[in-house]
Amino acid sequence: MNKLTNECIRVASRPAGIPAAENFRRTTEAVPDMQPGQILVQNQWLSIEPAMRGWLADANNYSSVPVGDVMRSLSVGTVMESSADGFSRGDQVMGWFGWQHYAVVRPSAVVQKITAGDLAPSLYLGVLGLNGITAATALDKLGQPQAGETVVVSTAAGGVGSCVGQLAKALGCRTIGLTSTPEKAQACKNEFGYDHVINYKTDDISAALKAACPDGINVYYDNTSGQISDAVLPQLAIGARVIICGTAAITSWDPAPMGPRVERILLTRRARMQGFILFDHMDTYASYVRQLEDMVRAGTLNHREHITDGLDTAMGAIQELYRSQNLGKRLVRL
Amino acid sequence: MNKLTNECIRVASRPAGIPAAENFRRTTEAVPDMQPGQILVQNQWLSIEPAMRGWLADANNYSSVPVGDVMRSLSVGTVMESSADGFSRGDQVMGWFGWQHYAVVRPSAVVQKITAGDLAPSLYLGVLGLNGITAATALDKLGQPQAGETVVVSTAAGGVGSCVGQLAKALGCRTIGLTSTPEKAQACKNEFGYDHVINYKTDDISAALKAACPDGINVYYDNTSGQISDAVLPQLAIGARVIICGTAAITSWDPAPMGPRVERILLTRRARMQGFILFDHMDTYASYVRQLEDMVRAGTLNHREHITDGLDTAMGAIQELYRSQNLGKRLVRL
Repeated sequence: MNKLTNECIRVASRPAGIPAAENFRRTTEAVPDMQPGQILVQNQWLSIEPAMRGWLADANNYSSVPVGDVMRSLSVGTVMESSADGFSRGDQVMGWFGWQHYAVVRPSAVVQKITAGDLAPSLYLGVLGLNGITAATALDKLGQPQAGETVVVSTAAGGVGSCVGQLAKALGCRTIGLTSTPEKAQACKNEFGYDHVINYKTDDISAALKAACPDGINVYYDNTSGQISDAVLPQLAIGARVIICGTAAITSWDPAPMGPRVERILLTRRARMQGFILFDHMDTYASYVRQLEDMVRAGTLNHREHITDGLDTAMGAIQELYRSQNLGKRLVRL
Repeated sequence: MNKLTNECIRVASRPAGIPAAENFRRTTEAVPDMQPGQILVQNQWLSIEPAMRGWLADANNYSSVPVGDVMRSLSVGTVMESSADGFSRGDQVMGWFGWQHYAVVRPSAVVQKITAGDLAPSLYLGVLGLNGITAATALDKLGQPQAGETVVVSTAAGGVGSCVGQLAKALGCRTIGLTSTPEKAQACKNEFGYDHVINYKTDDISAALKAACPDGINVYYDNTSGQISDAVLPQLAIGARVIICGTAAITSWDPAPMGPRVERILLTRRARMQGFILFDHMDTYASYVRQLEDMVRAGTLNHREHITDGLDTAMGAIQELYRSQNLGKRLVRL
């Protein structure tokens, strides 16, 4: 391997709906020269996120990746060379290094240095990364769950959802998970400790929720929007908190699809719906990492990884996420 | 007038949409005997509230008035007789005394004793009553407006909206009012100090908001839902707060009407929508009354009253509220 040659996945076109392999192209190019204050990272693990669909969407998103750019991604890698303060050759880092073998970046691209040597580095892209920290931060700050309350999670077996369920359970909540396949339902019960699991593709969601939540729903951690939310929201309890963390069930927001208006529910239940994006909460990132590291070490935070090998496998991976073909954090190993 | 004879308005039938005169009936009956611990109040002022539509609606409301009961209402009256601690003949009180001349109630029905002798008692049903205290409490606790922010108010000339606009302006916000007639628009500008006024019946709401709120909307105080909200919500700024205080634009919630889904807006703007009902905040009621009394005395909180005389005029008054036929707090003088 020539250290100066890089393999990259660049954005080739803007997808209309879910990004597919044909929206990307693989390139072979020289690794850029390092400038003063930069670091050279060799990636070992690339992350695939549901949020990537949003990053590639055209309109009205908080952060779009331009066509032609290397695909934005969190990655875990090793510092090969550094002219930046605080970074040395051999450091393990997690950050915005993109879908490529090598990245030349400023220290601001690093989300965290991985200092706990006892835990697998790939975990920092999943249960100890964006997924886990999103779950912990949003549940804590927006959901504010109290012991004895009922917490409902859409995409309950997913990277974020499975953490939410376990964190809520650890706080003494009753947890209800919504998922899409018998295999995922099994994992929700056996690995992620949900008290009740509802298959939203085969069950009558409203009836199943009514049976599982006789006193209403106190916290709804929503990763989907759509028909699942239409069934959940009318069953909110007084003072309920709804965390809007993702909208995976909606293929296009341009224009916004129609759904039942929510104002009367929010009013009569004095409920709150609030959008959450982790990047607003980076000041507390490290403290939530430490909390979850302790749970992983204690064996009280189960998690799964779904790994494929080789840069090329990244290109079709976003589409797989939306086809319910994955269970656990989707990773590409280089 | 025989002190033992009462004139009452009772609920005759449950309205399908907006309560009309035919949903009530007038009765003449004996004033009930007082029990120990009760007080006898002679009403001087009755309140007409948009919320009464909700109190009379069948389904899914936080508090319905049973058919046959005296219509629930806040009133201002004078204590005629008391066997309750803390109340004496001659006390002025505001509370849940209903659409009737006399009420025999427990002290828990009293919302407040009116102790400030310098202000007109009717104000305690309007700018110093449910309307003003709703505006002050919801804007402060849920809206959390900061100086320099943009605050949009639907039903800007109404009892709640006109207070919201003035309170937000006093806090240093830019205020944008949505209202329905040229007369109300005039009042919004001249009496309630709005920086911009939009007539939602004749203006292009989206275009007018875009022009008036170039940096987006930080606080939306919503009394309507419906098409006004559909125009406001896409223009929320990052971190916006939406207060759901009423849904006057929607005639029936059974089933909920369809509208554009809001999740993507809440997510991308990290915005919050929250329902507000004053009765959850009675612990802070008195302190907001004192704050608004000071503003009324200082002449910095303008308000209007729309008064009709006689118990019978109450029956059609709710319908008038929804026909945009009123400007200012709707009151019945007995």
